[in-house]
Amino acid sequence: MAESQNAGATDWGLLEPLASSASATSDDAVLIALVDVERALVLARAQVRGENLDAVAASLRADALDRNDLIAGTRAGGVPVIPLVSQLRSQAEAAIPGSGVHVHAGATSQDILDTALMLVARRVLSKAREHLLGAGDSLVALANAEKDTLSIARTLGQHAAQSTVGATVAGWLDGVTAAIDAIDADRFAVQLGGAVGTGEDFDRDVGSPQATDRLRAALAAALDLHDPERSWHAERSAVLRIASTAALVAATLGRIGRDIAFLARTEIAEVSLGTTGGSSAMPHKRNPVDAVLLTANGLRAAGLIGTVHSAAVSHDARPTGEWHAEWAAFRDLLRIALESADAVAGVLGTLRFERPAIQENRSLSPDLQRDPEATLAASDRIVESAIHRFRTPAQKEL
Amino acid sequence: MAESQNAGATDWGLLEPLASSASATSDDAVLIALVDVERALVLARAQVRGENLDAVAASLRADALDRNDLIAGTRAGGVPVIPLVSQLRSQAEAAIPGSGVHVHAGATSQDILDTALMLVARRVLSKAREHLLGAGDSLVALANAEKDTLSIARTLGQHAAQSTVGATVAGWLDGVTAAIDAIDADRFAVQLGGAVGTGEDFDRDVGSPQATDRLRAALAAALDLHDPERSWHAERSAVLRIASTAALVAATLGRIGRDIAFLARTEIAEVSLGTTGGSSAMPHKRNPVDAVLLTANGLRAAGLIGTVHSAAVSHDARPTGEWHAEWAAFRDLLRIALESADAVAGVLGTLRFERPAIQENRSLSPDLQRDPEATLAASDRIVESAIHRFRTPAQKEL
Amino acid sequence: MAESQNAGATDWGLLEPLASSASATSDDAVLIALVDVERALVLARAQVRGENLDAVAASLRADALDRNDLIAGTRAGGVPVIPLVSQLRSQAEAAIPGSGVHVHAGATSQDILDTALMLVARRVLSKAREHLLGAGDSLVALANAEKDTLSIARTLGQHAAQSTVGATVAGWLDGVTAAIDAIDADRFAVQLGGAVGTGEDFDRDVGSPQATDRLRAALAAALDLHDPERSWHAERSAVLRIASTAALVAATLGRIGRDIAFLARTEIAEVSLGTTGGSSAMPHKRNPVDAVLLTANGLRAAGLIGTVHSAAVSHDARPTGEWHAEWAAFRDLLRIALESADAVAGVLGTLRFERPAIQENRSLSPDLQRDPEATLAASDRIVESAIHRFRTPAQKEL
Amino acid sequence: MAESQNAGATDWGLLEPLASSASATSDDAVLIALVDVERALVLARAQVRGENLDAVAASLRADALDRNDLIAGTRAGGVPVIPLVSQLRSQAEAAIPGSGVHVHAGATSQDILDTALMLVARRVLSKAREHLLGAGDSLVALANAEKDTLSIARTLGQHAAQSTVGATVAGWLDGVTAAIDAIDADRFAVQLGGAVGTGEDFDRDVGSPQATDRLRAALAAALDLHDPERSWHAERSAVLRIASTAALVAATLGRIGRDIAFLARTEIAEVSLGTTGGSSAMPHKRNPVDAVLLTANGLRAAGLIGTVHSAAVSHDARPTGEWHAEWAAFRDLLRIALESADAVAGVLGTLRFERPAIQENRSLSPDLQRDPEATLAASDRIVESAIHRFRTPAQKEL
Repeated sequence: MAESQNAGATDWGLLEPLASSASATSDDAVLIALVDVERALVLARAQVRGENLDAVAASLRADALDRNDLIAGTRAGGVPVIPLVSQLRSQAEAAIPGSGVHVHAGATSQDILDTALMLVARRVLSKAREHLLGAGDSLVALANAEKDTLSIARTLGQHAAQSTVGATVAGWLDGVTAAIDAIDADRFAVQLGGAVGTGEDFDRDVGSPQATDRLRAALAAALDLHDPERSWHAERSAVLRIASTAALVAATLGRIGRDIAFLARTEIAEVSLGTTGGSSAMPHKRNPVDAVLLTANGLRAAGLIGTVHSAAVSHDARPTGEWHAEWAAFRDLLRIALESADAVAGVLGTLRFERPAIQENRSLSPDLQRDPEATLAASDRIVESAIHRFRTPAQKEL
Repeated sequence: MAESQNAGATDWGLLEPLASSASATSDDAVLIALVDVERALVLARAQVRGENLDAVAASLRADALDRNDLIAGTRAGGVPVIPLVSQLRSQAEAAIPGSGVHVHAGATSQDILDTALMLVARRVLSKAREHLLGAGDSLVALANAEKDTLSIARTLGQHAAQSTVGATVAGWLDGVTAAIDAIDADRFAVQLGGAVGTGEDFDRDVGSPQATDRLRAALAAALDLHDPERSWHAERSAVLRIASTAALVAATLGRIGRDIAFLARTEIAEVSLGTTGGSSAMPHKRNPVDAVLLTANGLRAAGLIGTVHSAAVSHDARPTGEWHAEWAAFRDLLRIALESADAVAGVLGTLRFERPAIQENRSLSPDLQRDPEATLAASDRIVESAIHRFRTPAQKEL
Repeated sequence: MAESQNAGATDWGLLEPLASSASATSDDAVLIALVDVERALVLARAQVRGENLDAVAASLRADALDRNDLIAGTRAGGVPVIPLVSQLRSQAEAAIPGSGVHVHAGATSQDILDTALMLVARRVLSKAREHLLGAGDSLVALANAEKDTLSIARTLGQHAAQSTVGATVAGWLDGVTAAIDAIDADRFAVQLGGAVGTGEDFDRDVGSPQATDRLRAALAAALDLHDPERSWHAERSAVLRIASTAALVAATLGRIGRDIAFLARTEIAEVSLGTTGGSSAMPHKRNPVDAVLLTANGLRAAGLIGTVHSAAVSHDARPTGEWHAEWAAFRDLLRIALESADAVAGVLGTLRFERPAIQENRSLSPDLQRDPEATLAASDRIVESAIHRFRTPAQKEL
Repeated sequence: MAESQNAGATDWGLLEPLASSASATSDDAVLIALVDVERALVLARAQVRGENLDAVAASLRADALDRNDLIAGTRAGGVPVIPLVSQLRSQAEAAIPGSGVHVHAGATSQDILDTALMLVARRVLSKAREHLLGAGDSLVALANAEKDTLSIARTLGQHAAQSTVGATVAGWLDGVTAAIDAIDADRFAVQLGGAVGTGEDFDRDVGSPQATDRLRAALAAALDLHDPERSWHAERSAVLRIASTAALVAATLGRIGRDIAFLARTEIAEVSLGTTGGSSAMPHKRNPVDAVLLTANGLRAAGLIGTVHSAAVSHDARPTGEWHAEWAAFRDLLRIALESADAVAGVLGTLRFERPAIQENRSLSPDLQRDPEATLAASDRIVESAIHRFRTPAQKEL
């Protein structure tokens, strides 16, 4: 009954519903980043050596690469940079005979792949940050609109005490602010150490004992990355910090998704969603698809962040497996963070609170109703404070 | 410096070096399985109703599906089955007007996706099993050849006591046997519960209160899957067991990879590998690429098996996120298991032990050398026993 | 403001609410198992050698051990067996001078600790199984009582279709049956390999090349453990399988907990619980404590099962860290499984369904109400089938 | 054969070899922190209300608490704060009749437990930081001593290129610096939100709409914690950040452990350790126990950090399981970080490099030997740079 299958483990989003919002994490995007790094390295090295290699750099093109050759070469050598360098050198030679030697000069595969993934991370988290700002703006509006809407707060699943919708929304906004703060605290480090991290080949190539430092600084500047003033082939804290940020984004937004999925339940009905999904069995269904996917992404990130940590228990100047284990997990964390940021901005942009249902649910626990004055005063304070933190210029208008 | 990027999170193996050996886990393979399930459901239902719908079933074709529409529909509804059913009904209608109603009749999206992933799991682990049998055959030959080769066994990194290469190889064979046994103990269950797991719509459709049971049995038979005599939309132990098998395969083979990577170290040099990888910086390198990737896959599986378990803390008749969190992790575990089984068969097929180096290393601890008679007797016993377990017919010649 | 602290990382249950039901997993219980193994080894070896060492075995007593010495010795050697053997030999010598040599003869630390943890695993999962049988009996009664109680089933948080309470309960029963089946499929293997897994020292000690096999069989018989006919110091599939069972128990019961916590929500109120917890801030609260803790344990197990898998990527005849990483995670998984089994039996023993609320919630979706005949027929079928699987003698009356 | 077992899941370090260095994470230490928080809350509230309750605060004593009552109450209510508050109120009443009302006034259990765990976190990571500074000092000395010691660097297990021991040590120092930097970037937030996070009861209690803000600030000041200007019962980013730091510490030091365990191998022998462990089977063994335990802790942390992330996918004003799942995992992460920091300081304090063996291993790859000038210049630069970062005042002399 089976039909013929294609030749490799190609995924185009069938099992990743939010994939279309995360093209910045695709293999093509990573490949573009790899070429960006090799190109920037040509230029940075030329700058340090006082040469002009603009034409060589311009000859390196991601769109002209032979993907089948990359796949075969990655299988053979265990890392995509080996076949990539071979192809890029051919591109350079075709443009300017003899120029292949200027491509990847003194670098090791890990320099290029680590730096490219940092470049992808910065691009992806920057996009995620934009979505988070949009989500925050929606939450500011919702919090202001609902800060005087009395509601019942629930703990351990039980009606607990009187609160307001605004206070709940402010708590979501705090999560968005925390996610943005985590992104803003991240530094995306360039990797440049050569064969075993010492940069010796760069020094020899340029003829100066400080060449590696100058080259790393120039490469970082060209790619708008952070210069950590060292290589970090086997010291993975730079990756752990960014991976933790991505996982924090996913967890924080997963919580908002879980809250929304609950508030949208048929019996609760305290929110209505602008976009819902259907069902293959039940046409009447109005499923809170984005809230569901936010929750799913939060859970997925938890497994992946563990992988990145076990991979960080590295060894040698480059380990026998741990580094390779990190790649997919790190990229998937970035993907999930971007997907969730996009989805949360979407769902919050059209979310509406249903005051009659909120009031009706509240009325189920008449003993918990109190003089609203103190509740509303607290709500005002909480909403104002959360908005203030979100709007704090140094953090939010970078 | 960035070039234009493509439209979705498409991965073609750039960061997955062993991807080319795991096409049975690709999105295309999953899509084929989804269509296989819908087609089998048409036929099983026709059988239970005493109809002939062979032409309708034959009209359903995975290769004619519009993937962009699937991607868009998966984004909208959160599950690929919704747009898939829509397209398949159009295929049926185009072939036989009025027949669209026979496609997906009474089923829910989860019936199809869960069953399709079980189908993929059986196909993938069956392929993995073949590779493991091949790996086992290589290990039998190596164990027999080296059962009298004295070596030094190491614990906590230190020379510990006299042993043989055969005893080490027998331990690897035990891991392969354990992986095969785990696969053989698995049952790949069909999912069929309809909208909320009760199968009521199938009963109504066929006009019999036992229709669901008969339909499920017929579907299982058609797809060569196990009939669990129940639906399991929110009771995920069937998935946990298979996911655990895949993770066990990856862990067990990861250990073999770690051993080989160590034995291939420059200072140890007790094995030589038929296939090694190069380096973009160091042309002299002979990297034990497959051993490295086996180790990496073992570590990756550890994170993914956690995700499957947290996703199993489900709720309702279908949960608000947990099920969606399971898909990618479950598929990736299957992928990793297949990749590792293929890789271990490859690496063991050309592995050779270097007796001079083994003897030289052993000589570093002269105080640990003993009369070899007891050592060799123990080695013979261990090798014979491991081969016997591997060869036990009921388990290994299915 | 800090007061003085005690001398070690002692935990007595402050952050483990269900700890009191899991004494079988305490350090004292593990210590008792360690002594059980050393004692059984003395007897098994005496049997193989045709000696009588009953008095030596009887002299070994867990209750007389100096824990501070064990703690210090474990710190020094990294494994508790080293100081334990020293103390046990002193116990033997004090009883029968010259008999210390019969304690731990030919064994390595890992033989004792692995076997002891298997003994703990069997004891713990046997207890868990008893609780699961009790939980299953409660579910059988609930399913029978409520198989005709119409309810609304929910998917993705939305009212989906008409079902019955009995069908929901049958789904929980399926989870309990799956947990019991997983336990019943487990084999708890004895570990006996001596210094580097070959058993050579046992052979030399007894003067026979088959001594290790006979000794392992005798030890397994004495402890009622499985004889795997091999040692498995670095091949951890035996641990993975049992750890997976414990995690499956926790996940499966966590799902029941999540369902109950939802059904007990103030707005839903479809169940009432015999035992609820209070609140330090809100005396009115009736918190579904056990359901909450079941959910929590399900999530905790997911992280721990990942650790056991990354630890299984072992190497050498005993690895440089992976084995040590396994101990606490494996024990904690057993603890969580036992806690959850006890808790689920408790919560299900007093759970009651509230038919008026169930009917009221159902009435919120009048469009989903249908002729009940097919629904009830399906419910009867599902309940009967689930009870049949639970009652299947071969599996459930061991 | 089993002996009687004690009444609860008490752990005193049998399976946690480094436990004796982590008493700051014991249940007793957490209990002391809980009482510290309740006491500080009495004083902070008195300050805000303009009262003197010093005698009431002084009456609260951790050492006088009934642990069995705490265990039973934690089992009943699911959280230790409920029975704790009851006992503390009795302590206050016994000292000053009528004063029990001043204990825990307006607070909820989560306020106390979250704040106490933050207090534990700050205490633990502060101790860990001291150990890391000591480890860093040792590394500075080693790096300076060995910056001109030529060595062979290894990648993927193979000899790769000429380097120096100093460069390797500088890489370890970078990891220690990264761990310290992560600790220094952490903020340990006070939790104070009352029943549902709004602080309304505090406002009512004090009679001012800003009372909660003033009380939170006073509590934070009293405990030397950070005032986040909000409550965060269900928004767990504050926990995620600290948990990530602890996991980063464990991973970073685990890598050093893995390197040392390799360099101490019999065939490599490039380091000798001041402290090694023995073996119950092989008296000749000199096991690198601390390096092994560092590696083990790195792997353990990876599973626990995943649990904390899945627990962060919270909901409501307090969730039905996720918060409870966080406690043990968060505490265990802190424990592991402290244990590893202590162990790494110990192992590095006595580590010596063996220059003859380093030279001998290097000589195995004569083709990789080069003119040392550039290598040594690079080494000097790397060592100086790593020491500079470690010594940067703003970060390291807090």
